[in-house]
Amino acid sequence: MAKKTNNDKTDKKMKKLRVIPLGGLHEIGKNMTVLEYGEDMIAIDCGLSFPDDEMLGVDAVIPDFSYIAENINKFRGVLITHAHEDHIGGVPYLLEQFQVPIYGSRLTIGFIKNKLKEHKLSADTLHELYPGQVVDLGCFKAEAIHTTHSVADSFAFAIKTPVGTVFHTGDFKVDYTPVDGSPIDLTRLAKIGQDGVLLLLADSTNALRPGYTRSEQIVGNSLSNIIRSSDKRIIIATFSSNVHRVQKIIDIAVENNRKVAVSGRSMENTVNIAQELGYLNIPPGTMIPLKDINKVSDDQLVIITTGSQGEPMSALARMSDGLHKNVHIRENDLVILSSNPVPGNERDVSDIVNSLMEQGADVLYNDIAETHVSGHACEEELKLVHTLLRPKFFIPVHGEVRHLLGHARIAESLGMPKKNIVYASNGDVIELSRRSMALSKEKVSANPILVDGLGVGDIGNSVLSERKNLSESGLIVLAAAFDSQTGRLRSIPQLHTRGLIYVKEYGSILDEARAEILNAVDDAYAENKKRSEIEKIMVSTLRSFIYKKVNRSPAIVPVFMEV
Amino acid sequence: MAKKTNNDKTDKKMKKLRVIPLGGLHEIGKNMTVLEYGEDMIAIDCGLSFPDDEMLGVDAVIPDFSYIAENINKFRGVLITHAHEDHIGGVPYLLEQFQVPIYGSRLTIGFIKNKLKEHKLSADTLHELYPGQVVDLGCFKAEAIHTTHSVADSFAFAIKTPVGTVFHTGDFKVDYTPVDGSPIDLTRLAKIGQDGVLLLLADSTNALRPGYTRSEQIVGNSLSNIIRSSDKRIIIATFSSNVHRVQKIIDIAVENNRKVAVSGRSMENTVNIAQELGYLNIPPGTMIPLKDINKVSDDQLVIITTGSQGEPMSALARMSDGLHKNVHIRENDLVILSSNPVPGNERDVSDIVNSLMEQGADVLYNDIAETHVSGHACEEELKLVHTLLRPKFFIPVHGEVRHLLGHARIAESLGMPKKNIVYASNGDVIELSRRSMALSKEKVSANPILVDGLGVGDIGNSVLSERKNLSESGLIVLAAAFDSQTGRLRSIPQLHTRGLIYVKEYGSILDEARAEILNAVDDAYAENKKRSEIEKIMVSTLRSFIYKKVNRSPAIVPVFMEV
Repeated sequence: MAKKTNNDKTDKKMKKLRVIPLGGLHEIGKNMTVLEYGEDMIAIDCGLSFPDDEMLGVDAVIPDFSYIAENINKFRGVLITHAHEDHIGGVPYLLEQFQVPIYGSRLTIGFIKNKLKEHKLSADTLHELYPGQVVDLGCFKAEAIHTTHSVADSFAFAIKTPVGTVFHTGDFKVDYTPVDGSPIDLTRLAKIGQDGVLLLLADSTNALRPGYTRSEQIVGNSLSNIIRSSDKRIIIATFSSNVHRVQKIIDIAVENNRKVAVSGRSMENTVNIAQELGYLNIPPGTMIPLKDINKVSDDQLVIITTGSQGEPMSALARMSDGLHKNVHIRENDLVILSSNPVPGNERDVSDIVNSLMEQGADVLYNDIAETHVSGHACEEELKLVHTLLRPKFFIPVHGEVRHLLGHARIAESLGMPKKNIVYASNGDVIELSRRSMALSKEKVSANPILVDGLGVGDIGNSVLSERKNLSESGLIVLAAAFDSQTGRLRSIPQLHTRGLIYVKEYGSILDEARAEILNAVDDAYAENKKRSEIEKIMVSTLRSFIYKKVNRSPAIVPVFMEV
Repeated sequence: MAKKTNNDKTDKKMKKLRVIPLGGLHEIGKNMTVLEYGEDMIAIDCGLSFPDDEMLGVDAVIPDFSYIAENINKFRGVLITHAHEDHIGGVPYLLEQFQVPIYGSRLTIGFIKNKLKEHKLSADTLHELYPGQVVDLGCFKAEAIHTTHSVADSFAFAIKTPVGTVFHTGDFKVDYTPVDGSPIDLTRLAKIGQDGVLLLLADSTNALRPGYTRSEQIVGNSLSNIIRSSDKRIIIATFSSNVHRVQKIIDIAVENNRKVAVSGRSMENTVNIAQELGYLNIPPGTMIPLKDINKVSDDQLVIITTGSQGEPMSALARMSDGLHKNVHIRENDLVILSSNPVPGNERDVSDIVNSLMEQGADVLYNDIAETHVSGHACEEELKLVHTLLRPKFFIPVHGEVRHLLGHARIAESLGMPKKNIVYASNGDVIELSRRSMALSKEKVSANPILVDGLGVGDIGNSVLSERKNLSESGLIVLAAAFDSQTGRLRSIPQLHTRGLIYVKEYGSILDEARAEILNAVDDAYAENKKRSEIEKIMVSTLRSFIYKKVNRSPAIVPVFMEV
């Protein structure tokens, strides 16, 4: 791989296409990829990711927009592939800073609009695209291509650039029988492949899974069989964004003379938005308000709810805890989890299953019945798309390390030379000419930006590690007032603990600690120590006493006042 | 179900067998079941469980021994089924309080001895049992029965009681081809069944899985194929307690002219204990110290390591982070995870897989190759054991709610009347005569006891919820000294934060907060408020200011001193 990127920088830069992933590599989440050529820059997707267990108290993580900020004058807009949080969730934070154009399918834009309303932001820069439409963004010509995924109205993008066509699959699977009857546009992919693709960026989520992802139709059939043969009250939890799944559930309910009620804010939003835009077809009289569910008999009701990932505050979690306002779980309930737990959520999901069963409900999930299929392409589907598009170069995107490497291996197995594949990280700069692709030595800032409450980016690693310490061992405040004249203690030191021990029962430990500290201070007086030394002695006496007593190392916050 | 338990209590109590689960129901972990009849009491197993994500900073959870403590004079001993932590981990904590006899297989006792050494406790009350041996414990006669599980030398127990035989399976699978050539003793089970079983207590872990658990032989064959055809350095992570798996790996290494090194404290312990007791057969010259691994070529080495569950401080985790003293991951490494992630550990395990791959290692795990089988019986095996034992009554144990209910359903499917099955919770008292089983209204204390550092039980829910709050929003100390004469502030209030914001960059928020507080205090002076009111005003001013500024609600620790 030739690497001559740093000489003649400005000159060379004009002649190369630069591809810069800001998120979505080495992670599932916060997808965002920048394309830059000369005086034009665009991005594909602008997602968020959910905090991991170590990010205590953090609400969301968004991509680092600093490189876009530095180049805002040449930034032409963002192409959104589909309406999942890891592709649209960062949009409000971007628009808060910059009024840039956002392009996506009608449903995608509908979902983003709803988001902007919550953030009290203007929707003026949102633009709807129909499948096949081409949009000019400076030197880039982007064509929206219909694809199939677990949210309706998903796009791939074929982007003509001065050095060749870049194809970004977005998230996809090859579903020949999707619920809306409109499969991924393989014919168009074949034509684009024939015309020549310089670079493919493709979804790697399921690259390690052999075979094919099954069609959404399978789930429809399975749910239909379950519901047809049951006279219980049915509660189905699924991803609210899966409009096709929701449509299918409504269809099945109607076939079986059941009414449908919806629970959970995001599910209500989805149903409203999708119905308004014509993506959901609901016969009149089908829907009933949640508060009226007890007016129909159990075998005439389906409740569609959020919470299929075991999210602690979700509608399903509240049902399982007996805290839901309208839905009280009982023996005649059949709860169906039409989902698979996202890695990391397994424990939360099984806790909810257990609570529901404990209250007498029957629970079906994907281990037991075919109540879910993935939205991402497995190995054979990836091979199909690579084969149709015949790209010269390839960057695997959307996945953890193992997924990206697995996807690279698939490309190699199809005959692509290893040197034509770049295994990249967020913040890398990949430069392409018509004939070459190379990883530049240059890096752009691509730190995860943590959002907590209203603060964006004011939480850093130091704050998180403080939170982690607090969470594991708690904290003691050691407070004392010194006389400004004599430098001596004006009062007995105070000790306040949080998260350390159960003070009501074990508080005598604190009395003992205080006595130890006072002894140490007396010794220090006797040795005529300075006040700063006395302060240090007080803290270290406390620390070693607590460690000796309970083998814990709480954070100690010394508060020394002078009066 | 007849429930006449509270009248004539002492009299009735003498005539009934009482079965009291102290742990292991509605959870996977801390197994312990008490049997009580008249003046005799025994327990089966004494395990621990690992803290869940909500138990911040907790090291382990053990069963509540209070009921045993109340009855210590009639307590005859603990029968241990096998050497897994969730069956033996509580033993040191029990022996710290009471010198009671502990019975188990030779290997089980070997593992417990090692544990007691770490806790600096005497091993005088440990007793080895051989398969088939019967031990008298007051009115109970317990027979140890050889079974197969993922740790060698596992027992079931058939316990003759004055009202009939109680059969406890321990953890088991029906393996016809275990590594040591000694399958579960089905012949003995058949005979015991023929003689009559009053009550069966049986492992429910895999009750929801149809079919059979495959034999440990499958893993042996699979590992053998992988290692034979590779010339890379092989690193295999597995459960250290799985002595058979370790034996198989050593056999395969020897067959392929590879040396074996061992990494991780618990793996070293296992190998030492098992070898000493004759459970591991290692040809001389096979083992090499970890520090010498670079003296042999890659294709002549197998490293067996701990960390297959992604445990953060384990040997494998340190290898993946580049922090291991002796093992530095490189391109010529093949890492095999011979394990499945326990629910809740999936994220940790995939993080390690990603890091290993990022450093160039090939990684195989059970999704890709057959590198692991479960140690627990699936549906068909459970049916076999129920059918051989023909119990009159059944209590499903060892499982979450869904597993227990699934196991109850299996028993029903075999023709057991629903009323002969008790679905119990920890702390329940189940009373049996020769003809009846009923859940008593009585409950015994069976709270989870949290162990944190040296403290056993001094962490309660209030401490944990404080830790959780701290971990999510951090904390502010608000400190001020008041004049004891005038009741007025003697100094500007101090603010100290932990885990709230990045003070170096955002510290001006604290200056603003202080100004707001001083303004509020001035107003309060003007209105001649009392000191206690001023204190409240200071706290509430701070709280609402922080919420307004950053939308967070940190814990506020007020420290008001009088000088």
